[in-house]
Amino acid sequence: MALIVQKYGGTSVGSTERIKIVADHIKKTKSKGNQVVAIVSAMAGDTDKLINLARGLSKSPSEREMDLLLSSGERISSALMAIRLNDIGTKAVAMTGRQCGIITDSVHTKARIRSIDADKIREYIDNDYVVIIAGFQGISEINSDVTTLGRGGSDTTAVAIAAALRADLCEIYTDVDGIYTADPRIVSNARKLDKISYSEMMELASLGAKVLQIRSVEFGMKYNVPIMVLSSFTYNPGTLVTKEDEDMEKILVSGIASDKNQARLKISNVDDKPGIASKIFSAVADNNINVDMIVQNVSENGKTDISFTVPKDDADKALNILNDLSRKLHTGSVSYNKDIAKVSIVGVGMRSHPGVAAQMFKALSSENINIRAISTSEIKVSCIIDEKYTELAVRTLHKAFGLEK
Amino acid sequence: MALIVQKYGGTSVGSTERIKIVADHIKKTKSKGNQVVAIVSAMAGDTDKLINLARGLSKSPSEREMDLLLSSGERISSALMAIRLNDIGTKAVAMTGRQCGIITDSVHTKARIRSIDADKIREYIDNDYVVIIAGFQGISEINSDVTTLGRGGSDTTAVAIAAALRADLCEIYTDVDGIYTADPRIVSNARKLDKISYSEMMELASLGAKVLQIRSVEFGMKYNVPIMVLSSFTYNPGTLVTKEDEDMEKILVSGIASDKNQARLKISNVDDKPGIASKIFSAVADNNINVDMIVQNVSENGKTDISFTVPKDDADKALNILNDLSRKLHTGSVSYNKDIAKVSIVGVGMRSHPGVAAQMFKALSSENINIRAISTSEIKVSCIIDEKYTELAVRTLHKAFGLEK
Repeated sequence: MALIVQKYGGTSVGSTERIKIVADHIKKTKSKGNQVVAIVSAMAGDTDKLINLARGLSKSPSEREMDLLLSSGERISSALMAIRLNDIGTKAVAMTGRQCGIITDSVHTKARIRSIDADKIREYIDNDYVVIIAGFQGISEINSDVTTLGRGGSDTTAVAIAAALRADLCEIYTDVDGIYTADPRIVSNARKLDKISYSEMMELASLGAKVLQIRSVEFGMKYNVPIMVLSSFTYNPGTLVTKEDEDMEKILVSGIASDKNQARLKISNVDDKPGIASKIFSAVADNNINVDMIVQNVSENGKTDISFTVPKDDADKALNILNDLSRKLHTGSVSYNKDIAKVSIVGVGMRSHPGVAAQMFKALSSENINIRAISTSEIKVSCIIDEKYTELAVRTLHKAFGLEK
Repeated sequence: MALIVQKYGGTSVGSTERIKIVADHIKKTKSKGNQVVAIVSAMAGDTDKLINLARGLSKSPSEREMDLLLSSGERISSALMAIRLNDIGTKAVAMTGRQCGIITDSVHTKARIRSIDADKIREYIDNDYVVIIAGFQGISEINSDVTTLGRGGSDTTAVAIAAALRADLCEIYTDVDGIYTADPRIVSNARKLDKISYSEMMELASLGAKVLQIRSVEFGMKYNVPIMVLSSFTYNPGTLVTKEDEDMEKILVSGIASDKNQARLKISNVDDKPGIASKIFSAVADNNINVDMIVQNVSENGKTDISFTVPKDDADKALNILNDLSRKLHTGSVSYNKDIAKVSIVGVGMRSHPGVAAQMFKALSSENINIRAISTSEIKVSCIIDEKYTELAVRTLHKAFGLEK
């Protein structure tokens, strides 16, 4: 007998028909002798409907109330799932984030879980209930206000609950059947990975792969929760996100990621003296814009150019900030380019194998793809290239590192 | 400066356009120097949509989960209303039943409020906030599960909150502009009442007038909360539900009610001995069927007939129970009739004026309307008649008691 935590995404529970299918699967898991806790997202489309209602009333809806609003979608799907399970003879209760003891900080719309008191869940599963949990939500430590964990937050609910319950496995059911070496829409012979390490998965998630919320992987790594990503449409074996092992280290590159949601800004002729870069990046950060790759040219005559990338949605805001700063700091012109993309290779094997970056640059140059900026971590190399070359670059790298095998 | 509690029904907040209009009205009330707490129902249609989803999954959905499901509608509308108010520059917070400290018993889908801890609401209004409360819901004393107060429960939330805050007035905004002497769709010259006593309003509510949930009137009477029923579409002066005064006692009859949702069951040739009636009505009550008017014929040869009315929806269930009992108790046949209606006259004046019932019977007989059963209280007389005469009976009684003046 195992304790299994399952999470079903929005498309998995997107209609009453889908809820019936998932309820059958939960019942089956239970009837094999397992204890089951299932976290559900809002029915596909519901969250967007609620967001549109709010936008019809306010251009910048108050975040505390947005959380109360958006948390409703998961309450609805969790109640419906429990209703269905009871109907087919499997004892079930639905629980909200509050009832599961999920306490968060007070950062509305992107709260972080502070603690979970899983006693109540434990009591129900010990009494042979399946527990259905409304994902994506908790209540704040100070005011007991409803908070939400950001887009994809139900993944984090699931892994955090699995950690709190010391579950044997956390299954993340979605509409794809695992993690691939590259996006199969770009690379036709991309291969599903049987397993991947937490750190690789975190890099992939931060590089634009949308299968798992990055914080859920952090939780998994911290509490060593095995996470299985699989499809509720096929129930094929998926990809296990787990601790690094020797097999993984033998592989240079596990996956290729690409992200077109990038824009590059450049501010030229900046005084190359202490404090200037800090002024620029503080101003950008104060506006909650995430800066990604920063390149500072070699200084000439005490002046330098600084360029960096930001998410495309924030490009206009960042441009306004730079134009302001440019006047105040008497710099040269500010320019920006939205026609760029980031391609990345990820693999724990590169830690022990130097030369992987060089191999990447060589592969790209063999197709005449110009690299505009580079950033690296222990297990990742990212390059900024012209957007039009994105698919070509992904396919080239996929082949160069032999990922189809 | 007054403390005003307002309640807006489902049609009042049925669209983003309606929410904007109501938000403007709340803002106006606030800007006159009042403190305002507003309770909102779910947007019209939302509750039915949720019920249909649940029915698509189960013929008898678990009640605990139905409460979690249905409470979502009010959370959505309360969040949207607060979002709109903040947008138009009126500081507002949305609060759930739990956050308002509304503690109920554990009778899911028709819970009763046990206590309210209004400190948090008080804190917000003292800090100049408008507080928007999700109606219809609380949490249970024992398990902290979400509970709902039954159809129309937001009325009760409003009056109970008004009582807890010792508000100066509780305004119930709906889609009609007050309480009428009779249903204006039946009696064209029905008159809107300026005021009505709590006890009359309770009789009217229990007799099928759907303007206020009966428990809200009980709360109003118990805590002496002045309740104003009025329209959020016209904002005309409405009807004040309040303590009895001398004026009210001068009026014999305040209103006429009719209810077609009635069925009559009859079990014949029952042994007329102690314990038999108790067996019959216990069996019916055990199935949660509300029995209304009971008539037992004069006994002949130690046998009698017993007939009673139940809500039409419960007629089939009641019939099955009676057929079972009939076999066990060796009675005569069981019959039932769905083509009946109840017409009633209500007025505190009849307490001090005998002969009102006689006047009612005379008026009905003048139109050849046969009376099949009668029940009376201190301030009400109800008659069961053939359904086809309902409108004629209401108009006849309206005229007979001079209510058009």
